Amino acid sequence: MTARARAAVLVTGSEILLGRITDMNSGFLARALERHGVRVERFLAVDDAQESLESGLSTLLRGGVDLVVTSGGLGPTHDDRTVAAVAAVTGRPLELSEPTLARIDEIVAEFARARGVDVADFAEGNRKQALVPHGADVLAPIGTAPGVVVVHGEQRIVVLPGPPVELARMWADAERHPLIAPLLARGQQPRRVLRLYGAPESAIADAFAELGGDAGGTETTICATRSEIEVVIRYDEDSTAAATRLADGLRERFGSRLYTEGETRLEELVLDALRGRGLTLATAESCTAGLVASRLAGVPGASDVLVGGIVAYANGIKHDLLGVSEEILARHGAVSPECARAMAEGARARTGADVAVSVTGIAGPGGGTPEKPVGLVYLHVAAPGAARAAERRFPGPRENVRDWSATAALHLVRVAVGSATETRGDAPSLRPAPGL
Amino acid sequence: MTARARAAVLVTGSEILLGRITDMNSGFLARALERHGVRVERFLAVDDAQESLESGLSTLLRGGVDLVVTSGGLGPTHDDRTVAAVAAVTGRPLELSEPTLARIDEIVAEFARARGVDVADFAEGNRKQALVPHGADVLAPIGTAPGVVVVHGEQRIVVLPGPPVELARMWADAERHPLIAPLLARGQQPRRVLRLYGAPESAIADAFAELGGDAGGTETTICATRSEIEVVIRYDEDSTAAATRLADGLRERFGSRLYTEGETRLEELVLDALRGRGLTLATAESCTAGLVASRLAGVPGASDVLVGGIVAYANGIKHDLLGVSEEILARHGAVSPECARAMAEGARARTGADVAVSVTGIAGPGGGTPEKPVGLVYLHVAAPGAARAAERRFPGPRENVRDWSATAALHLVRVAVGSATETRGDAPSLRPAPGL
Repeated sequence: MTARARAAVLVTGSEILLGRITDMNSGFLARALERHGVRVERFLAVDDAQESLESGLSTLLRGGVDLVVTSGGLGPTHDDRTVAAVAAVTGRPLELSEPTLARIDEIVAEFARARGVDVADFAEGNRKQALVPHGADVLAPIGTAPGVVVVHGEQRIVVLPGPPVELARMWADAERHPLIAPLLARGQQPRRVLRLYGAPESAIADAFAELGGDAGGTETTICATRSEIEVVIRYDEDSTAAATRLADGLRERFGSRLYTEGETRLEELVLDALRGRGLTLATAESCTAGLVASRLAGVPGASDVLVGGIVAYANGIKHDLLGVSEEILARHGAVSPECARAMAEGARARTGADVAVSVTGIAGPGGGTPEKPVGLVYLHVAAPGAARAAERRFPGPRENVRDWSATAALHLVRVAVGSATETRGDAPSLRPAPGL
Repeated sequence: MTARARAAVLVTGSEILLGRITDMNSGFLARALERHGVRVERFLAVDDAQESLESGLSTLLRGGVDLVVTSGGLGPTHDDRTVAAVAAVTGRPLELSEPTLARIDEIVAEFARARGVDVADFAEGNRKQALVPHGADVLAPIGTAPGVVVVHGEQRIVVLPGPPVELARMWADAERHPLIAPLLARGQQPRRVLRLYGAPESAIADAFAELGGDAGGTETTICATRSEIEVVIRYDEDSTAAATRLADGLRERFGSRLYTEGETRLEELVLDALRGRGLTLATAESCTAGLVASRLAGVPGASDVLVGGIVAYANGIKHDLLGVSEEILARHGAVSPECARAMAEGARARTGADVAVSVTGIAGPGGGTPEKPVGLVYLHVAAPGAARAAERRFPGPRENVRDWSATAALHLVRVAVGSATETRGDAPSLRPAPGL
């Protein structure tokens, strides 16, 4: 194993410490660093006082990490103090970077012209944003704020802006920076990412142990997210056979519950599978009330597959817009396999889509009965010449039940169109999916 | 001003540092603590090694805070080490709490019976979870893990479980705990929360300065979240008049853009406004594709107001299910005020709801033209004897455009049904809303 680099993330922003904004940048950077094999040891969030920034940065550097990445505090106002804090902690005076100032002036002038405001109002802010620690390298601004890369002994500090889109784009530049790229390359190893749905983490951990664990020079993490388990196997070239043996062993044990390799989002896998067969999709949602459609529409270009859907929250809508019969509603109820089936078939008929998926369930906290408790959900996929039905019981509060129901619906579509099986070419497309 | 307590939050979990799970517990605790007037100074996330936990906890305690709240690491396995770390850092040996063990045994026995598994398998884990630092107070388990409250000199440590639902419920017990309640009460002050939509943060900051700022003994924070600005004015009883003067001044300047006082979620305000007038709601969504309906359905009891909706992603669905005429689609396009209006009217007619709201826009990254750029969104509300239309231009990536469009739709409904105006009783319900 090569020596993986160690990193920490420092986030600043009073809104974050007030709980008004959820910090998504730490997670983004963690995923990005982990792909390079860097071990992220700490996330620290501090307010935007310079003292807080300096003490937070010092704490992380004292931890002995190779890299600290900061997010936020780069704006033009006196509240934006990250660069000054980095200068103070690394003992480098702040200096005006003339080329950076010229670039910021240019960006701001264009902005001011477009809005019809006076460019002179921005002069002070521009100058403030062009101050960088002596000897630092500047990362070109994405918005108006430049980032910096600072060397501190054997350690590196990368200073990035807070807006997530700016941070993500500037990180792509930082990754290629000559002071950062070698550090990221240090722990660079091949890795395999296996993702499982419908198998408990403990069963996967047991299977991994039975397969001999990391005895063959691999380094494996088993990580549960809200709806799936991700297994990441890192290995050196020498240990390729061991990694393959582990991956094959898990696939053999978990079958189609090991539903993909790689990091493509579930929504994209579903859309790709449908697109690959020239199929369109519609939704019929009760308890999820648009979550399934909305998650799919989050993927750019979804419109060539997703035609739309019906949110059938009230029974009247299930009847009027989806054609669910009064008999089904009266005899089996809205939360029943019969209703789920009628909803999917109705959505398919009314929208003209090739495939339709339905969800109906009891999200809670009210509405449960001993026969139909909170968390009970029925799903159905109607597809050309095929159908898939599922009954699930989800634990937890309303939010979980709805979220997991939407995920289950996406998986049911995936199985119905045979994405997982077809990509491995090992079975006809519509075989049953154990554990789904 | 009374002396506000200072706090920090310690979160543990390798999934968080791998970026697989977004930590929502820090934000929850920050909001809860801030309501008591406690100043949260740091969030720190560390992995689940005991060394990491001990060093993280020590770092936070050294910062001189009055309270550290921890989240996670309380489970039955060897990976769950938070209690052991607290014991080590505070120099208290771990001891078995017999009453706690009895309670855990009881909970686990019930669980094992329900699943038909052998209760003996859990004995070791139960015992591990019943170990608490000498002299600590136990917080009763919500799942199987108890929490603890530990005194460390003048400082307090509250140890809570990681699952958000368990954490939230146990925090409610911790708030009332005799060692914690006095600390929270220290900074307890009256506060007013004003929420504004459609006004830039800088304009609010300017208005606040013009009103004399915090000169009268108040302490005000102005905080931007993704879609609104929240102004929190804290004050002592002596300064009630000053707080009222600030709040009144802001209301005078921003009119109905100051849309609510208090912390009720926008979705609930919208549902309450509709419910108060006995109106039902349907949605017709293109670019948001179910986000509006789904956000409303996130509120328990939404079903007495929200009947459902149509996700009209493809133009064919806009025509077939919402009755948007081919002429509108051909002449004005799907992203037009005419289409938005026809969608809302169609949804109202087809679902029988009293009120319908529509959203149609270009979420990007593709699909923009010079005339209709990415971010252009049209909204329409059709209501009994009234209509509201809005055109918006949202910046940023697809995710932002969709999210802000859904928020704009909820506000347009709110304005149309007159919630903000009626609750203050100062105007008829359907006046125009500046800045919406």
